[in-house]
Amino acid sequence: MLQVAIYLFDGITALDAVGPFESLSRSREVEVSFVGRQVGPVRTGNRALGLIVDRSINDVDRADVLIVPGGGAPGLNEALTDTDLHTWIRKIDAASRLTCSVCTGALILGAAGQLEGRRASTHWRAKHALARFGATYSAGRVTRDGKYMTSAGVSAGIDLGLTMCGELLGTELAEAIELSMQYDPSPPFGTGNPEHHATGERIGMVENRLR
Amino acid sequence: MLQVAIYLFDGITALDAVGPFESLSRSREVEVSFVGRQVGPVRTGNRALGLIVDRSINDVDRADVLIVPGGGAPGLNEALTDTDLHTWIRKIDAASRLTCSVCTGALILGAAGQLEGRRASTHWRAKHALARFGATYSAGRVTRDGKYMTSAGVSAGIDLGLTMCGELLGTELAEAIELSMQYDPSPPFGTGNPEHHATGERIGMVENRLR
Repeated sequence: MLQVAIYLFDGITALDAVGPFESLSRSREVEVSFVGRQVGPVRTGNRALGLIVDRSINDVDRADVLIVPGGGAPGLNEALTDTDLHTWIRKIDAASRLTCSVCTGALILGAAGQLEGRRASTHWRAKHALARFGATYSAGRVTRDGKYMTSAGVSAGIDLGLTMCGELLGTELAEAIELSMQYDPSPPFGTGNPEHHATGERIGMVENRLR
Repeated sequence: MLQVAIYLFDGITALDAVGPFESLSRSREVEVSFVGRQVGPVRTGNRALGLIVDRSINDVDRADVLIVPGGGAPGLNEALTDTDLHTWIRKIDAASRLTCSVCTGALILGAAGQLEGRRASTHWRAKHALARFGATYSAGRVTRDGKYMTSAGVSAGIDLGLTMCGELLGTELAEAIELSMQYDPSPPFGTGNPEHHATGERIGMVENRLR
């Protein structure tokens, strides 16, 4: 069984974690564990959903794949300064096949020192923050640099997960997983690409009217 | 505040619930509650993730929006025969603005009697099951029939959620939410549409090699 560890923390963005989980966990060849600082519930950044950590970082010594989702302040800020977490990330990374992040999870990988000199994707609002970890922002939906795979914001974790399925399980099984998820997306507004749609007024709405 | 109730049950498909949650919960004008048979954790169908029910159906008398996600057997089968749940769905539906489902959640709405004579979307593998509830399958990504909005399988709940945001919050705010989720999907394999890609060998892989 391929062992996949997804890190959960208080303040997490639910879709960042569930997006890649949904594809990877469909295969009978994969075992996904949700790992956190301590066993028990964490809440999303908006507090509306509780997700359960099943294993503590103290009890997980290796994983074939590590996925670090993102979130917003203050939970993200805690993860960025949590040196025990960074030590754990480096330990898992030392023996992983793939070390991955979704959204602002790239900043956590960066804070652990894993993105120095690498290209990485992250949420469009966080792109300037990568520089302080020695990483270069990539506007790609999913960016690969060595064994490091990072995705753009929130929903991009679905594309990351399926891309990982292709690599870990083969193209045919990954195609079947994409079909089983009926992943034939139809964005109702067509405004999801920040290169084209993060214009002044709309950025203001994101900053002032959303959580 | 707009009150949104998302029903959770043991055996749920995580993305079915988290897809619409992620868009709706970004607005400061929306309060999302996770409602279930009893307060406490439920597990996904593959057992790999625990999600927390915060409110019992006994304590929730109304919601502006009801969303029923899907799942696989045996959890789905329990929901299909749970007459207390069906009574609760009818009570919430009686005063809701929108009553919605994702994936095989349409079958639960059907079992509660809410889709009689209506068109509905569901997961492609469940399309024939709608008939026993008097509903007609629609291949649409999101199908609207009166105040009933149903989506296709799993990932289609993201499109449902954003469509609901447009209706409940206005187009401009929904555009900003789609941008904040960076929802510019790029399916790696292009096999998510069952009308074109649910071919013999691939259906066999879905049935025999996935959970």
